[in-house]
Amino acid sequence: MRTPLILTAVFLLATFAAAQSQPQLNLTPMPASVQVGSGQLPINQLFSVALTGSHDASLDDEVKRFVTQLSRQTGIPFRPKAGAEATLQIHADHGRQAVQKLGEDESYELTVNETGAELTAPTALGVLRGLQTFLQLVQITPTGFAAPAVTIKDQPRFPWRGTLIDVSRHFIPIDVLKRNIDGMAAVKMNVLHWHLSDDQGFRVESKVFPKLTGMGSDGMFYTQEEIRDFIAYAHDRGIRVMPEFDIPGHTHSWYPGYPELASGPGPYTLDGDGLDPIMDPTRETTYKFLEKFVAEMARLFPDAYFHIGGDEVDGKQWDANPQIQAFIHAHGMKNNQDLQAYFNQRLLKIVAKNHKIMVGWDEILHPDLPKTIVVHSWRGQKSLAEAAKQGYSGLLSFGYYLDLMWPAARHYAVDPMSGDAASLTPEEQKRILGGESCQWAEWVTPENIDSHIWPRNAAIAERLWSPQNVTDVASMYARMNAVSLDLEFLGLTHRSARQHMLHRMAGTADIAALRNLADVVEPVKDYNRWDDAKGPIDFHAPLTRMIDAVYPESDTAHRFSELVQTFVQSGYKDPAAEAQIRMWLTTWRDNDARLRPLLDQTFLLQEDGPLSQDLSALGAAGLQALDYLDKAQPAPDSWKTQQLALIDQAKKPMADLLLMVAVPVQQLVEASASQHN
Amino acid sequence: MRTPLILTAVFLLATFAAAQSQPQLNLTPMPASVQVGSGQLPINQLFSVALTGSHDASLDDEVKRFVTQLSRQTGIPFRPKAGAEATLQIHADHGRQAVQKLGEDESYELTVNETGAELTAPTALGVLRGLQTFLQLVQITPTGFAAPAVTIKDQPRFPWRGTLIDVSRHFIPIDVLKRNIDGMAAVKMNVLHWHLSDDQGFRVESKVFPKLTGMGSDGMFYTQEEIRDFIAYAHDRGIRVMPEFDIPGHTHSWYPGYPELASGPGPYTLDGDGLDPIMDPTRETTYKFLEKFVAEMARLFPDAYFHIGGDEVDGKQWDANPQIQAFIHAHGMKNNQDLQAYFNQRLLKIVAKNHKIMVGWDEILHPDLPKTIVVHSWRGQKSLAEAAKQGYSGLLSFGYYLDLMWPAARHYAVDPMSGDAASLTPEEQKRILGGESCQWAEWVTPENIDSHIWPRNAAIAERLWSPQNVTDVASMYARMNAVSLDLEFLGLTHRSARQHMLHRMAGTADIAALRNLADVVEPVKDYNRWDDAKGPIDFHAPLTRMIDAVYPESDTAHRFSELVQTFVQSGYKDPAAEAQIRMWLTTWRDNDARLRPLLDQTFLLQEDGPLSQDLSALGAAGLQALDYLDKAQPAPDSWKTQQLALIDQAKKPMADLLLMVAVPVQQLVEASASQHN
Repeated sequence: MRTPLILTAVFLLATFAAAQSQPQLNLTPMPASVQVGSGQLPINQLFSVALTGSHDASLDDEVKRFVTQLSRQTGIPFRPKAGAEATLQIHADHGRQAVQKLGEDESYELTVNETGAELTAPTALGVLRGLQTFLQLVQITPTGFAAPAVTIKDQPRFPWRGTLIDVSRHFIPIDVLKRNIDGMAAVKMNVLHWHLSDDQGFRVESKVFPKLTGMGSDGMFYTQEEIRDFIAYAHDRGIRVMPEFDIPGHTHSWYPGYPELASGPGPYTLDGDGLDPIMDPTRETTYKFLEKFVAEMARLFPDAYFHIGGDEVDGKQWDANPQIQAFIHAHGMKNNQDLQAYFNQRLLKIVAKNHKIMVGWDEILHPDLPKTIVVHSWRGQKSLAEAAKQGYSGLLSFGYYLDLMWPAARHYAVDPMSGDAASLTPEEQKRILGGESCQWAEWVTPENIDSHIWPRNAAIAERLWSPQNVTDVASMYARMNAVSLDLEFLGLTHRSARQHMLHRMAGTADIAALRNLADVVEPVKDYNRWDDAKGPIDFHAPLTRMIDAVYPESDTAHRFSELVQTFVQSGYKDPAAEAQIRMWLTTWRDNDARLRPLLDQTFLLQEDGPLSQDLSALGAAGLQALDYLDKAQPAPDSWKTQQLALIDQAKKPMADLLLMVAVPVQQLVEASASQHN
Repeated sequence: MRTPLILTAVFLLATFAAAQSQPQLNLTPMPASVQVGSGQLPINQLFSVALTGSHDASLDDEVKRFVTQLSRQTGIPFRPKAGAEATLQIHADHGRQAVQKLGEDESYELTVNETGAELTAPTALGVLRGLQTFLQLVQITPTGFAAPAVTIKDQPRFPWRGTLIDVSRHFIPIDVLKRNIDGMAAVKMNVLHWHLSDDQGFRVESKVFPKLTGMGSDGMFYTQEEIRDFIAYAHDRGIRVMPEFDIPGHTHSWYPGYPELASGPGPYTLDGDGLDPIMDPTRETTYKFLEKFVAEMARLFPDAYFHIGGDEVDGKQWDANPQIQAFIHAHGMKNNQDLQAYFNQRLLKIVAKNHKIMVGWDEILHPDLPKTIVVHSWRGQKSLAEAAKQGYSGLLSFGYYLDLMWPAARHYAVDPMSGDAASLTPEEQKRILGGESCQWAEWVTPENIDSHIWPRNAAIAERLWSPQNVTDVASMYARMNAVSLDLEFLGLTHRSARQHMLHRMAGTADIAALRNLADVVEPVKDYNRWDDAKGPIDFHAPLTRMIDAVYPESDTAHRFSELVQTFVQSGYKDPAAEAQIRMWLTTWRDNDARLRPLLDQTFLLQEDGPLSQDLSALGAAGLQALDYLDKAQPAPDSWKTQQLALIDQAKKPMADLLLMVAVPVQQLVEASASQHN
């Protein structure tokens, strides 16, 4: 499954093809093996598809969706000739299983030549993957839309390639989840990890325990009918849906309806209480409740895996409860960790009785638990390797937290097999099933969640699908930007939502200057948006600030930085690069004057005034530095000192935003001062 | 209903408020009476609504949609305090009728002060209209979102304010129609005229005559269930749905399934045949067919009005059929017009038997028809006045054809009561029910139809709702641009679709330079995109050219032209205006060099090369003109001659597009040459 295959020449092509006559292949994730042929297959109104071998209604629907999507992408209403040979011949040996299994064969082979294309796969699941590759192959050319002649043999490196979406802290409606499923399918991910309950809200209808949503949510939750429909939707796109009910911590929302489950006295209200209440593992009534609850949810969610959370168990309520402490001593346990392990053992039996495999965050790793569980590493890669060594299967999410606002390159560099895992035996390595990106929902709404997930999620998807030696960052960015455009055609709003949000901030004013500012900032990283000193987060507050609208990673800053590198490496002798740099710097220098009237008119922009001033200062500094460089005249030390001071100022977070062009401007300033005439 | 009310000071305010401290009211259509108070009502998380008086599920749903929309617009998740007095109190004396009637009371009164707002109306329909006004009142301010204190008394000038959407030539799916219904409701339109059949396709399921869609469409049509759902959707938003089945001409799609209805021998295929076949009015079997068909459709569409088309009856098949000519002579008719009148009389009886009022295009106006029909003027305003004089009710669409690509101002200037109608007696004037904009579908797809309708349709909506003396064009544009932003928040894609389409043309390349070009062009006007010399239109061809992506009216050209006027009127002494003009001109001058590589790479842009060159030339010419003006030095004649020649060239349509900045650049060139030093 995970044997790295040899990458052919195409990988280099993808990076450098723009400058050559060979087609650039914007494939994400990069297939295991690609051989480029000569010529191309025109995609015109006569395009048609034929399906042979095993097929069922689900695959027929997938082919229809594929044709619709190709039509939307190209704008061509297809009108194939009756009786003509199909342009794309598809063959699957076997159909889909009713419930998608971990490790189900996803491989496929795709051959395109000038007269037609052929997609074959052992299973219909492989056909799904291959169709996404075909969609990415089709590009606009000087003579029309076309797919280049190519032979692709592809299969995933890891069998588990997931995205976690937290729907508790902010509720995310089904239609938003569905378009994200479409996005995941486009980059060949195969698991949606649905974080369905947490302190802030319980999001699944339970017919057995209706007060879970009745008192443990603000009325926003999924009915069982909606869930079944959603699971079918995901299944049709080759994606498993694994539920997570996080226990015994992160469970505040359970207690307004069922206070008897908690370790403290209660009563509880959804929005109050301060403390983080946790479940009481010492009462038999807790397990009776869980028996019924897990049985109901195990029926609702057909996937073989069942995630029980288990992270961040704050022991305060256990410490404060004498009965619980007495229980610990009576059973010869040493501490709260032992108590959680006891709880997990009891829970495991319940989960297993319902024919599910238990998954939990890495805190559940405890010698008392059998090797049948799956350990989900979020606190570091060490625990993943550790678990594998001990015989547990594992998943990696450390390094894949989308909510930390890292650049795609940083996620891309995280490999499940690196670090401690690199020295595992082949047997142990097989236990590493893959990984999951995580979209925790403290700071997202249905409006901006897409932009927090995409396009960066595509880089993680590639890490988990493509061979380990696919690591070229420049190629990844070029291809991620291409897939980003495709995703907007699919209906995701990771780009268009910003436009709406900027318009909201600006009222009816023109947003061109506002967009210039938004283009070069990024949200603060890691957990720097909030600290405990600010008190608890108000999860009901509007998320309508600039930080909520901007992209986690600034394309513009990325491209500007590359331009500056090019210019520096040329010994300041690349006039084309310099002209472009000047164009940007001039825009920024003049932007504050354009933006100023608007900043004063609308309350949502008032905090961004200093940021706008700093951007103008950076523009001016950069332009002066270029002037010194043009004159080959070293900039005076006093000037340099002054500029570096203002650059330092501009590097500080303002309105929880970072000006991402401060560093390349600093490079120009330092270069202008250090040159010798 | 249509008594013009006196407009208060606000109308001037809407135009000039930006420069003052008074709030600018972005209301479209402008209400009949507005009085601005002092202060404003904050809209924050505590916002709530209470409903008293008559209300039913439909109104409750409307209020829910209103709150959702206000929440989306402001980004505020509302969390009203239980028991607190509602921010907005709503009262309707009477509920909705099961089928909305022409002339049903749509009036409302809306009062906003610093502590709350009140909306009252005689009917729930008036409440719907008032809620849309409230949504438009809410704006961002330096202190938060707020609605200004205001007293509005409002009612429509005309009871019939419609939009025709042709779904035959290109099929438009229900979801696209629904979002356009939302847009119509936002500007208080109240009729969707659904042009459901034409030569190119029959779009309604008939259970009695299934071959109408089975052989008369490409498989794209609405089921009766979808139609009922859609009518309910429109009804909930205060919009009547009137079907049109265009007979006896425009009926090619009827004949593949039912060739016996045609006046020529057949057989017929949907995509062939050349001739425009028309219905045979001489056979009794035709009327038997129509009896059954109209009965079925009259049950499906509850509206009291039934549009039978009747336009452009090409008599060629009648002329060519000896039996039909014999019939004409036998019945003492003079010509084909008499035959059509005979047909319409027979049809009228069928329509009336089904308790419907017959509406037809102005060709049906014939002394033989009773005064109960409604005449729909499309060939000129004359026929509207003529019909009213003769005692017929009338609707105006001449001047409101959105597919002719006119600027909003030109539609806005067309008043149903102007021209011949101005001299009608009050009695006769009452027969003019209102009008309809028309979106004929030769050149639209689901992708770009929104941008062909919006925002220009808002100007027509205002013409039909607001008092006759609301005519300030600058104010209309300012408010239309505001409503345009609101409409994107509602889900319309009239702006965002262009972005997608430009990306399709550009592949993965940056589209900034392409957008610069797209910003300043408009499609050729009237019917100049096509003439018969090009042969028949291929309705299956992709609509993916630049002309399909651009807005029918260029905002940028409009603003640039205004800037040039400002600059000229200042005696060339407005440095701020000049700086902005220079910025635009420089961007355009340099744009061709930026765009050139892309133009060569993609087949969809190759035709736009000359256009891009001309834009650069215009930019250069304008900049040179400014240089002469700055130096107060008359430009040499030879230079002027040369520039005017290239401007003439740039004014010619290229790739079916017009460069809309040629005229203001010409002004600059002429000014620079005519100044005296």
